[in-house]
Amino acid sequence: MALLPKSIQNLINELSKLPGIGQKTAQRLTFYLLKQPQIERQGFSKAVESLGKDIIYCSICHNMADADPCKICSDVKRDKSIICVLEDPLDVVAMDQLADFRGVYHVLGGAISPLEGIGPENLKISELLKRLSENQEPKEIILATNPSMEGEATAMYIAKQIKIQNSKFKNIKVTRIGRGLPMGGDLEYADEYTLSKALEGRREY
Amino acid sequence: MALLPKSIQNLINELSKLPGIGQKTAQRLTFYLLKQPQIERQGFSKAVESLGKDIIYCSICHNMADADPCKICSDVKRDKSIICVLEDPLDVVAMDQLADFRGVYHVLGGAISPLEGIGPENLKISELLKRLSENQEPKEIILATNPSMEGEATAMYIAKQIKIQNSKFKNIKVTRIGRGLPMGGDLEYADEYTLSKALEGRREY
Repeated sequence: MALLPKSIQNLINELSKLPGIGQKTAQRLTFYLLKQPQIERQGFSKAVESLGKDIIYCSICHNMADADPCKICSDVKRDKSIICVLEDPLDVVAMDQLADFRGVYHVLGGAISPLEGIGPENLKISELLKRLSENQEPKEIILATNPSMEGEATAMYIAKQIKIQNSKFKNIKVTRIGRGLPMGGDLEYADEYTLSKALEGRREY
Repeated sequence: MALLPKSIQNLINELSKLPGIGQKTAQRLTFYLLKQPQIERQGFSKAVESLGKDIIYCSICHNMADADPCKICSDVKRDKSIICVLEDPLDVVAMDQLADFRGVYHVLGGAISPLEGIGPENLKISELLKRLSENQEPKEIILATNPSMEGEATAMYIAKQIKIQNSKFKNIKVTRIGRGLPMGGDLEYADEYTLSKALEGRREY
């Protein structure tokens, strides 16, 4: 028997569809929202409704943006000769929190994953190669896809493509972000693959 | 610099206002929603918007309902002589999942909490006493407020009120739900207060 009013049960059902949110959490969130002023809920509801309506993609870096070219690509202070290749828009957010990196980005829109039916042609890889050939002075490509099976395969694929078309881009340095023990991590708990990468990536003092 | 389109950043902000949802979770949920079909998001948005608009309160048990009297109070198969007193509508949902309990409920709307300025007059306690005096054959009141400071105080207060007005309700048995070690719990990790209640609530085999 449904014991709760329909509007409450409805929102509980909707919230529990979200990843990582179970029945109990959905109940807690719904009752939290119920206690908020109507105007707060309206703001939330509007935010869900208008999600995605203003999104365009930057024709240079293929990141989500609200202008084309995006703020980063049109920023004159950015070093256009260093391109960091990433999987998703959220990776751009994470990377751009670093004051260290002042280059530009290229967003692939995912990683190669045969299991999910995502091949190189579904990603912005040909666009990257085109961008490199058009760029006046490409110095370095930093492959910063995720350190997962898919991310590694994608990075390897791109590095190989650049090598094949070597005649066109002979002076481009292609690098892969460092893999190894995370800061604050514990060697004892690291998995074998991470440890092997950490050993491989060791540096002289 | 805001790197994400406004509609995305908006929803991330709204979601991170919810209890237990931080910045990273809000980002993850927003991008999940972005990948859903528009119709799914509309359902969610509508559910938030219409939340609470259909709620009325049952004039007998004071639970949230969509009809008055509510489904439970108007159910002829329910034993009206056993009333389980609870704090919130979600407690009714939890309790009613038990096939064991076929009585009715009384929802207080919270617990006595001087710190939050909630006194007995803010809860449906006088309504409970009125209900008892009007009920033809009240047999048992099960006080099932939470086993917290506030819930214990509320249960004690109600028990005392019933005792004071003893002349009116002389045959009512007033009980408190058992407190002790939760099933699957570990004695070793139980707090002192729970252990003391478990000892107090021991029973002969």
